[in-house]
Formats: sequence, structure tokens, C-alpha cells
Amino acid sequence: MSAFREILTDLAGGVLTITLNRPDRLNAWTGVMQSEVETAIRAGGADDGVRCIVLTGAGRGFCAGADMNGLQAIQASAGADYNDTRPASKPQSPSELEQKFPGRFGHMFACPKPIIAAINGPCAGIGLILTLFADLRYAAAEAKFTTAFAQRGLIAEHGIAWQLPRLVGEANALDLLFTARKFDGAEAETLGLVNKALPGSELMEFVGGVAQHLATQVSPRSVAIMKRQIRESYFQSYEASLATADAEMEGSFATHDFKEGVASFVERRAPAFTGK
Amino acid sequence: MSAFREILTDLAGGVLTITLNRPDRLNAWTGVMQSEVETAIRAGGADDGVRCIVLTGAGRGFCAGADMNGLQAIQASAGADYNDTRPASKPQSPSELEQKFPGRFGHMFACPKPIIAAINGPCAGIGLILTLFADLRYAAAEAKFTTAFAQRGLIAEHGIAWQLPRLVGEANALDLLFTARKFDGAEAETLGLVNKALPGSELMEFVGGVAQHLATQVSPRSVAIMKRQIRESYFQSYEASLATADAEMEGSFATHDFKEGVASFVERRAPAFTGK
Amino acid sequence: MSAFREILTDLAGGVLTITLNRPDRLNAWTGVMQSEVETAIRAGGADDGVRCIVLTGAGRGFCAGADMNGLQAIQASAGADYNDTRPASKPQSPSELEQKFPGRFGHMFACPKPIIAAINGPCAGIGLILTLFADLRYAAAEAKFTTAFAQRGLIAEHGIAWQLPRLVGEANALDLLFTARKFDGAEAETLGLVNKALPGSELMEFVGGVAQHLATQVSPRSVAIMKRQIRESYFQSYEASLATADAEMEGSFATHDFKEGVASFVERRAPAFTGK
Repeated sequence: MSAFREILTDLAGGVLTITLNRPDRLNAWTGVMQSEVETAIRAGGADDGVRCIVLTGAGRGFCAGADMNGLQAIQASAGADYNDTRPASKPQSPSELEQKFPGRFGHMFACPKPIIAAINGPCAGIGLILTLFADLRYAAAEAKFTTAFAQRGLIAEHGIAWQLPRLVGEANALDLLFTARKFDGAEAETLGLVNKALPGSELMEFVGGVAQHLATQVSPRSVAIMKRQIRESYFQSYEASLATADAEMEGSFATHDFKEGVASFVERRAPAFTGK
Repeated sequence: MSAFREILTDLAGGVLTITLNRPDRLNAWTGVMQSEVETAIRAGGADDGVRCIVLTGAGRGFCAGADMNGLQAIQASAGADYNDTRPASKPQSPSELEQKFPGRFGHMFACPKPIIAAINGPCAGIGLILTLFADLRYAAAEAKFTTAFAQRGLIAEHGIAWQLPRLVGEANALDLLFTARKFDGAEAETLGLVNKALPGSELMEFVGGVAQHLATQVSPRSVAIMKRQIRESYFQSYEASLATADAEMEGSFATHDFKEGVASFVERRAPAFTGK
Repeated sequence: MSAFREILTDLAGGVLTITLNRPDRLNAWTGVMQSEVETAIRAGGADDGVRCIVLTGAGRGFCAGADMNGLQAIQASAGADYNDTRPASKPQSPSELEQKFPGRFGHMFACPKPIIAAINGPCAGIGLILTLFADLRYAAAEAKFTTAFAQRGLIAEHGIAWQLPRLVGEANALDLLFTARKFDGAEAETLGLVNKALPGSELMEFVGGVAQHLATQVSPRSVAIMKRQIRESYFQSYEASLATADAEMEGSFATHDFKEGVASFVERRAPAFTGK
């Protein structure tokens, strides 16, 4: 991977960790960070050595939202300074799924690797939206969350209007968007916004365990297909979703990973999946 | 506002409170009440002085369902007495969103103001359906709920079949509809049917706090757009929902409320939103 | 009902209990069991004497998933031995709803009777999928669950990709599918996967109470229509779902069950519904 200015990347044991790295600004989101996160995720998605991607923040924050300097510049120019900066790494021929999920974060749904957000601290505005496009979210129980938009005169940005009700139901989505109130990681678990909240001191060890499990105990082929199946199903009739499942099941039977899955179970040993 | 026969209305601090007012009948629903609630909500939606609408019940009940005298008349006439009484205030040119949400309660989704149901007591049948078309629901923990329909030989009326699974998931929706069992506000919170349950003595103060927050701390322009975005998203591809969001975000940048949102944040003071 | 080889059936008080009956194999799923369960459910759906169907397992398990002998045969033959065995009882003219829900388990959505899964013990793989097509799920708190597929190199089979997010939300669905981790009935309740978890010793008595309630306290006509309304609503605009509801409501007014529902309420006595 190339050197980045506003993120750190680390690959160990099949787990790619991407760390938002502007700790003195609580990792506030910038156009550079947008481009670098997308580039790193796309690279991880294409790298056979990466089986799981973890997104987290450096220092005491996760991502405090759009950098306020940027927002002030937009405000001063009444929008003229606003650029939806697109990284150069955007593919020439996006997949069918990526075409269905365009915009800043849709590529995360199209990434064939599971993406975990490890929300270690304040998570606001566009920082919160970023996490909604991860597959799994774990949070420090004391981390502070807010959508923020309604308190800035803004709206439900970047697909949150579409995705948030799928995660927390309509009533919680309206609550969080309308009030822009602060809530903590423990409540985020109750609302269904994160899969689990833990004491902050235990977060990264727990996430490391989940990531290691995903990297070693399950077939990366299975996970990539399942991820696509779930996100495709939002646009499919039951019949079409079932037809995909039937075709993929038939396709699985000839693979190494199915053979290994059955053999390791029968032999009561750890599997050695290859994704083939 | 004109005088009403079966509801009370009160406007204070930008909060319009609509109180179902047949306390000796636990505010059982009638054609008159239907018409008056709709008229009051439409008036509130169109009044710049109204930033939030609260629905509640007079006395110890919220709404015990369809007035049994009305049901008996329908039963005696085998349906001939049934009239879906439409208030005269129905608009000549309903908005695009209202066309997508017709019927008795769809206008509540199309109302540009947030609507809160404060469920102070028994909430049954059509009274429960009424609350499903509010945006937020808060309940007395001891309030009794029931769908009631299956115990009357009736069906999933007035859009509840479509809306209830969005609020509580399929399994809870089927449980509540099939069994018509009674449950209380505390369980309603667990099921995801209400945002929060509180001791009855604290309900109206809590709801007052949420309503005041919505009336003063967030942009009414933001809230109106977000409300529309969420309800439109049910019929949109992700791509279309995102296109709406991008257009609305651009449109926000030139507004007073965006300027005020950023300025009040930077200056660490309360915002003074105008909705412009 | 005809004699079955791998299931038991029992009809008492309007409740048809179907028991998976390979207890020495934790009721592992076979083609024979598939065919027999479908035949029994179709027969129950068509029998006026059946008001509720309960699915459970003999011995200490519910259903441990696909029989491993079968999976090994498929693996050895690289799929050639895989047959999606269809029971002979498949109807010549499936209903419109059943056409929308084809495959192994779609007929359960189309069955006009409520189906309850009583998950008494281990519930894995295709055994878990079976329960997702029941209407209500109750589990022993200590019962062990797993999707299993990703640990076998398989994918999200038989419609689980479409149905699981409707029951537990996207985040929990991805967790359970990606990790294939084991979880117990108590967590299944927290995740929203089962309606309720109980100590194993209390499960069948509790389920018996729910089934008896459905068989005696609510209109079977109402339940059949509601079941169809909910499952149809997944493919309907709000407007179309409302039109169905309005037509069904009108149709209810002339029925015995509506008359009986109002009369039993007014007379404060138990109802005697006939489904007419």
C-alpha cells in the first residue's frame, strides 16, 4: 500500500486495520481522508491476503464529523466551495452492485471483504454515516454519538435516510435524525445501531477476536457471496433472491472450501479455507 | 383554529398539542374525531408558528379504538352504515408524498412537522393505528395496548399491515396482530413499538421536553426535509434516495439555517433557526 | 393424515403439532423429512379442524441442520448427488402468494394457518432456516443456534438472505451469517430472532398456551387474512396494501366472525369463531 497522509493502515493475520489519523481534530473528516479511506478499502477488497477490514480512529475519537473549517468555508461561500471529492481510484467498470450503491460510501457495500467499524470514541455526522456502511459495528459504551445534521441546518446526507431505518427501524431513525441528540455506545446497542457495546478498554481486543475469527474460521468465499446476497436482496423479489441462492449453492459444491468445511467438521479440526 | 367538538387544541412555544377529548369513552374514535384530528394536523402543518405536534388523550385513556356503538351499527347493518368519512379539509392537490400515502392517516406522513404520540393510557385498535403514523411514540409504562382486530373478526386495517413490520419487525407484528393480546407500555418499548416508556406521571413532562427541543434546538427546515426523505426512501432505490440527499444538501448551503447552525456551534450558543 | 417415516403429527384442540422425529440424529434434515413436513403443513392448511400448527423436535434437539451423511455424499460427488427433492403434494395451481414465495419453505408463508416453531434444542443451518418461515418462534433459553453455512464453505441458502434481515435487521443478519457463531435462545430473543425465550422446561407449556389462544380466542378468518396481508405487503406500495385492507375490511362486516367478535365483547363472554 502507498503512504497515506490522514490514515494509517496495518495488515496482520489477514486483518487490514485502517485508522483515521487526525487525532488532534478527533479525526474530523476531510476530502483527503475520504479519498484515502476509499483507496485503502478498495485495495483491501482486491488483496487475497486481506480477509477482514477494521475501521477505527486514532487517539480518543473515532470521527467527529465533517471538519468544521471545511463547513465554515462552504457556509462562507454558500456552497461554492463544496466538492464531492472523488478519489482517482474509482474503478472504470464498477460492479453491478456498486452501480446500485453509488456515492461516497456505496463502495463499502460492494467490497467483498467484511468491514468492521470499531467506534472507539466520538462519532458524529459524516463519521456516523461512515459506520453505517460497515457490515458490523462495535462501540465503546461511553463513546458519544450524534447525527448532528438538524442542529446545523443540514439534511439526511449521503444515504443515511435509506440505510438508517434498515438498521434501527423507522422510529429510532426519526428520533436520531430529528433531535440530533447525543447518545452513548450503550444506548447505540439498545437502539440496534451497533452490534455490541463494550467498555472502551476492551473494545479493540474484542474486535480483534471477531476479525481473527472471520480471517481464519469461515470461508472468505462464503462471506463474500453472503455479503453480496444480503445487499442485493434489498432490490430483489423473494423469487429472484432465492434463484441467486440456489445458483450460488450449486456453485459451492465443487469448491475447495465446501470440501474443507465438511472435512474439518467431520474430523473435528480447525478449517483451512482458501476462498477457492 | 376553529372550535372542535371532540378534540382540544393548544399552541404554546411552537408546540401544537391535540388532545382527543371524549374522556368518558376513553376517547373512542368516531368519524367526527377522525375529521377533526386531520383538520388540526393539516392546519398545524401549514402554520409557520407550529414546529412540533403532540397527540394525546384526555383523562385516563389515549384512544380505546373505534367507538363500539359505531361498530355495533355497522354489524347490525352488515356494513351498510360504514362510511370512511373524509373531512372537507382534504387538499385539492395533494403532494406527491401524500399521493403515495393515501387513506385516513397517510396525511400524517406528509405533514412537514414532526408528530409525537404521547400515549397516556389505553391504546387499542384504530387508536393504535393512529400512533403508527406519528413519527415518535412515547408511552406510559402501565398503558395497555392491543391491536384488537382478530378478536373482533376484523383484519389488519388502515395500513397497519404495511407499517407495523417497519416498526417492530415481522415476528412482533404477526404476534400482535394474530393474538390481539394485551401488552403494556413497558413491553411496547421492548418490542420497538414506542421509542420509550416512562412512568405515567412523568410522560407529559418528558414529551414536553422532546417537543420543546424540536421547537427550538433544530432547524424546522432540516426536520421537514428529513421526514420526507425517510418516507420517500421506502419507495426509492438507493441511487434515487442518494440523489435526493445530494440535491437537498446542496440546497441547504445557501440557507439561513445552515449559516445559523454553523455559527451557533462555533460561537457555542443556542441556535435561532427560522426554517429559511 | 397418512403415516410418516421421519415426523410425527398430532391434532388436538385445533392445534396440529408436527414433530421432527430423528432424535438420535438431533432431527437432522433429510429429503424425506422435507417432503413430509411440507405434506403435513399443506394438509393442516387445508383442514378446517386445524387452527394453528406447531413445529418442534423429538428428543433433545430441534433440527441440527442438513444430515451430514447427505452433505458428505454431495461433497464426494461435487454436487451431482444434490437433489432439491420436491414432494409429490406440490399443488397444481399454486396461489398468487405461493408463486411469490417459491422454493422449499415459501409454502409456509402461503399456509393460511399460523405456524409456530417451538425450538426445544439445537437449531442449525437448514433447521434454522425452517424456523424463519414460521410466523412465530419461541425457544428454550439454553438451545444452541448457528447458521453454520460460512463454516462449511456454503452460502446464505433457501431465502435466508432475504428473510433474516426482516427479522433481525441488517447488522445482526450479517453477524450471524458471516461468523456462523453459536448463540443461545436467550440471545436469540435479544437479537429479535425469536419472539421469546423461556427455560426449556417451560417451553412447550408456554407454546401450548399461545396455540390454544390462537385456536379459540381469535377469528381464524382474521388470522388467515392478516397473514396474507403482511407477506403481500413486502411487494406492495402503501397504496396497494391499503386498498387490500379496505376491501378486506368491507368484506369482514358481513361475516359471522365479525358479528361474534362484537357480540362476545359486548356480552363479556368468550367468542365462538367459525372462520365464516
